[in-house]
Amino acid sequence: MDYSSVIQEIYADLKKKQSVGKVAAYIPELAKVNPDKFGVTLLKTDGLHYSIGDSKEKFSIQSISKVLSLSFIFPKIGEAIWKRIGVEPSGDPFNSIVQLEYENGIPRNPFINAGALVVADIILSLCKNPKEEFLHYINQLVDTDLITYNNKVAASEKKHGYLNAALANMMKSYGNIHNDVDEVLDFYFHQCAIDMTCEELAKAFLLFANQGELTHQKKPLLSKSQIKRMNALMLSCGFYDESGEFAYEVGLPGKSGVGGGIAAIYPKHFSIAVWSPQLNQKGNSTLGMLFLEQFTTKTGMSIF
Amino acid sequence: MDYSSVIQEIYADLKKKQSVGKVAAYIPELAKVNPDKFGVTLLKTDGLHYSIGDSKEKFSIQSISKVLSLSFIFPKIGEAIWKRIGVEPSGDPFNSIVQLEYENGIPRNPFINAGALVVADIILSLCKNPKEEFLHYINQLVDTDLITYNNKVAASEKKHGYLNAALANMMKSYGNIHNDVDEVLDFYFHQCAIDMTCEELAKAFLLFANQGELTHQKKPLLSKSQIKRMNALMLSCGFYDESGEFAYEVGLPGKSGVGGGIAAIYPKHFSIAVWSPQLNQKGNSTLGMLFLEQFTTKTGMSIF
Amino acid sequence: MDYSSVIQEIYADLKKKQSVGKVAAYIPELAKVNPDKFGVTLLKTDGLHYSIGDSKEKFSIQSISKVLSLSFIFPKIGEAIWKRIGVEPSGDPFNSIVQLEYENGIPRNPFINAGALVVADIILSLCKNPKEEFLHYINQLVDTDLITYNNKVAASEKKHGYLNAALANMMKSYGNIHNDVDEVLDFYFHQCAIDMTCEELAKAFLLFANQGELTHQKKPLLSKSQIKRMNALMLSCGFYDESGEFAYEVGLPGKSGVGGGIAAIYPKHFSIAVWSPQLNQKGNSTLGMLFLEQFTTKTGMSIF
Amino acid sequence: MDYSSVIQEIYADLKKKQSVGKVAAYIPELAKVNPDKFGVTLLKTDGLHYSIGDSKEKFSIQSISKVLSLSFIFPKIGEAIWKRIGVEPSGDPFNSIVQLEYENGIPRNPFINAGALVVADIILSLCKNPKEEFLHYINQLVDTDLITYNNKVAASEKKHGYLNAALANMMKSYGNIHNDVDEVLDFYFHQCAIDMTCEELAKAFLLFANQGELTHQKKPLLSKSQIKRMNALMLSCGFYDESGEFAYEVGLPGKSGVGGGIAAIYPKHFSIAVWSPQLNQKGNSTLGMLFLEQFTTKTGMSIF
Repeated sequence: MDYSSVIQEIYADLKKKQSVGKVAAYIPELAKVNPDKFGVTLLKTDGLHYSIGDSKEKFSIQSISKVLSLSFIFPKIGEAIWKRIGVEPSGDPFNSIVQLEYENGIPRNPFINAGALVVADIILSLCKNPKEEFLHYINQLVDTDLITYNNKVAASEKKHGYLNAALANMMKSYGNIHNDVDEVLDFYFHQCAIDMTCEELAKAFLLFANQGELTHQKKPLLSKSQIKRMNALMLSCGFYDESGEFAYEVGLPGKSGVGGGIAAIYPKHFSIAVWSPQLNQKGNSTLGMLFLEQFTTKTGMSIF
Repeated sequence: MDYSSVIQEIYADLKKKQSVGKVAAYIPELAKVNPDKFGVTLLKTDGLHYSIGDSKEKFSIQSISKVLSLSFIFPKIGEAIWKRIGVEPSGDPFNSIVQLEYENGIPRNPFINAGALVVADIILSLCKNPKEEFLHYINQLVDTDLITYNNKVAASEKKHGYLNAALANMMKSYGNIHNDVDEVLDFYFHQCAIDMTCEELAKAFLLFANQGELTHQKKPLLSKSQIKRMNALMLSCGFYDESGEFAYEVGLPGKSGVGGGIAAIYPKHFSIAVWSPQLNQKGNSTLGMLFLEQFTTKTGMSIF
Repeated sequence: MDYSSVIQEIYADLKKKQSVGKVAAYIPELAKVNPDKFGVTLLKTDGLHYSIGDSKEKFSIQSISKVLSLSFIFPKIGEAIWKRIGVEPSGDPFNSIVQLEYENGIPRNPFINAGALVVADIILSLCKNPKEEFLHYINQLVDTDLITYNNKVAASEKKHGYLNAALANMMKSYGNIHNDVDEVLDFYFHQCAIDMTCEELAKAFLLFANQGELTHQKKPLLSKSQIKRMNALMLSCGFYDESGEFAYEVGLPGKSGVGGGIAAIYPKHFSIAVWSPQLNQKGNSTLGMLFLEQFTTKTGMSIF
Repeated sequence: MDYSSVIQEIYADLKKKQSVGKVAAYIPELAKVNPDKFGVTLLKTDGLHYSIGDSKEKFSIQSISKVLSLSFIFPKIGEAIWKRIGVEPSGDPFNSIVQLEYENGIPRNPFINAGALVVADIILSLCKNPKEEFLHYINQLVDTDLITYNNKVAASEKKHGYLNAALANMMKSYGNIHNDVDEVLDFYFHQCAIDMTCEELAKAFLLFANQGELTHQKKPLLSKSQIKRMNALMLSCGFYDESGEFAYEVGLPGKSGVGGGIAAIYPKHFSIAVWSPQLNQKGNSTLGMLFLEQFTTKTGMSIF
């Protein structure tokens, strides 16, 4: 199939739309982004790739980092991780503290904020230099050394991160955070403040489409079973309160971030990254969702 | 691939296991079933099929009927149904009334009890003879006339159905049940009390694997978009509080019932029905889950 | 102190106020009442009494009946009642079903709807002719035979009582309703549909001010300990979500109803009944609250 | 009435009881206390007083401080405080974060932890030297200069105060904490770590029994209306989840702390402080509750 022309056609069509949502404004640093940015990169497991628009421009990956941090630590800790985090959809907004109280400090899944904080805590326990090692891992996935933390964004997150501080302290009180709360939050705010381009993001997520193997390196990073778990989690929990809707409309495992990025994969076929900063009411990129919906509909490339 | 030998091998292996759970006992009529029953039917879209064990024996399909009732009414009411029912996982046990209160009488999805009660209410609004027409539809799917309601089970459900009565009355108070509460409950208790065999169930679910078309009839019953919705819902909401676990372990859209049945599908490839009455702590068939997990692992036939 | 002139003064002052709230409209029968009705009766334990305005006119006592039904059954069942109902404020609106789910079908206190339904269920278990015997009890308290059920109001309540039906079915599923759900609801709807005047209500509540004794009969109906419990419950739970506010502003144990009535007592001193059908946003009589606040402030007759 | 002999008799009787509960162990510093300590002081508004047992021994007043901090700030901020804190019982344990989320960061009342943290925040906003000024106020109430913070206890609280940190951060995210979260927590941990004797505590609480006036100083510190509010709040919210039970059994406004202290008052008559470190399952002093129950029963000195 000629993916190239399908991508061009949808892109041109959506590019005309204006005022389709609001740029994330909960931290000042994110609010500065140009709302009209729009980029796409598709990367096939056979090596072919297609990019369009602002695909080489860096943006804040935000919650998309939760998939990467889990994939970093999952092979190191193994199934033991599920004693501290669940694998079920939350049925609540991404930062609900209620669920934590009723379930004694065990987050429902690794992609809500509480779950990602536990993942961050595990990284702190297992790494000597957590921030350096995690950044090294991301660069390794993409086969580059250009990916860095955006310290301004990290500082801005920290300054407004009271709800995350509440979640971390709450879990600490239940014994589900082992390290110092401030250090866990510091790591988490940095992880969310990584800047990447669509091309880099698609490259990183190819890992999940490619059964755990990097295309530029032979030894698999994750087992097939671990990849299955990661993909199943992305499908059922990757879009907060809108996961069911995304599963239906797009039909691909994926993860969104409030920076306007979405990364998704079709197992054994391709990874795709879309970026457009204007968000719908649920906090997901409006054009990103539309692009993926139309792309899977027109190509028939959906798991359902 | 030689499905036949894979199925035989797994079946023989699991058949040895004993005391793997408890038969549903919340209604006396269900508690009478022989706990050692175990049957499987696989039905491919190309017409091939494989059966083993008690695959020709009737059992109570219970909540599996929620998929069938939705598929019955979905083409008639169309997208308007989503004004009265959500499409997101519930994050709560299947009969939680809490969620209903916080969301003003709108059930989170059509496969929790509250959602299925709204589906039943819609059926009552749209059909002259609801029970007859629904049974006719099920028989049509299976190309038979042997499927009936088990009135003893229906009566037993009614006698112990106070929680469902609470849910229905609650939604009635929010205006989300339009017909008489007792009539809605009567339909619902009958729908859950349908008896089917593994072979019949696999045949009925082939509809969802086969893009909305019956193999024995040309005109599609549901559109491709409607089938996508049904399959996405089964994947994210088909196993109550264990949906995330099932999505990972099995990697197929499906639906379980407390009668010990599970029906699942691999889009465009096959439907499969498993029955074993002993349930795990989450209310899903223990052997049914194990069978499907091993089957998808050994054949590689999973959407992830 | 000259209660008579204090009452006249406050009454005259409040009588000028207009449009101070909305008449209860959730059932048609209640919505028909004249919103400008306003009556007061004060009854002292020494026999003196003062009435003003529409104090001889019947109105629907609604939830005030919950105090009377509890006082009817409390001496018969004794402390065993607290195994089925709690004694703590609910922290939720009067008909919350959430609390019931988290506390396994045990209502927080006897003055929320769920608690009053359990009281009704106990009455059904202990009486041969529940409705007759309860009405006889009310008439006995007032030393009259003129108090009756308003069958139109009861029928109207039944027709719109889905939330109460949800609560009753929910508790039945937890085993905390022993009789037939419909019979419990029927009794409850009748109990709420009793019509009384301010004079009758003040007379009935004198029981609680007078340590459990009727002034026209020697043998006490409730023990001192039981009266203490009743009064403590009225203070902390008598005004739904506004109980704390009422305790502060008025400083008397009491109970309100959506018919616009309020009955309150000052232990060992007096009972007082006020009626004005216009309700504030929390469902309590606006003028009734204002009258009692000013009365206790001007007379200094408050327990705090 | 001869209070002296009543107090002696009850004290002697309760003193015989052993192993009536567990000393608070959530912070190591509190766990060190001798569990057999037992002291009582009754102080009448007419100046008479009665003490028995360990009434001159210091203990950690813990949550009893919440009443004192509110009374310190209430006259300064006035009714405006109720925009930031509610006056209704919580219906949840003392540190529930769920309620905060559903009510957008507004604590239900000033005596649950979240409410007391907002009071602490207000003190920080209004005082130049918050800790010094608050301590000065307490000493002024007691007419002494011997009352101090126990820095070891404060440090121990801080080290285990993750749930309070969660609450404070949560409210900060809703804008209901104005100062730095760590400073608010530091003040709060100190306020709870004040050491007082029964005699000092009874003296401090005489303020609430004596209509807002100190007996050793002429100008009232709080208005009669403010005292009414304080007393109503103590009655309905002073004993966490056991407030309804306490209101019934004791029938006096009061406040307990996990250090084993209880302070209560009978408006216009007396204040009373009891201390025994062994707690019941709800976190209130077992002997303290029993003493007050028997005292009010035998003397008839209860507001109900």
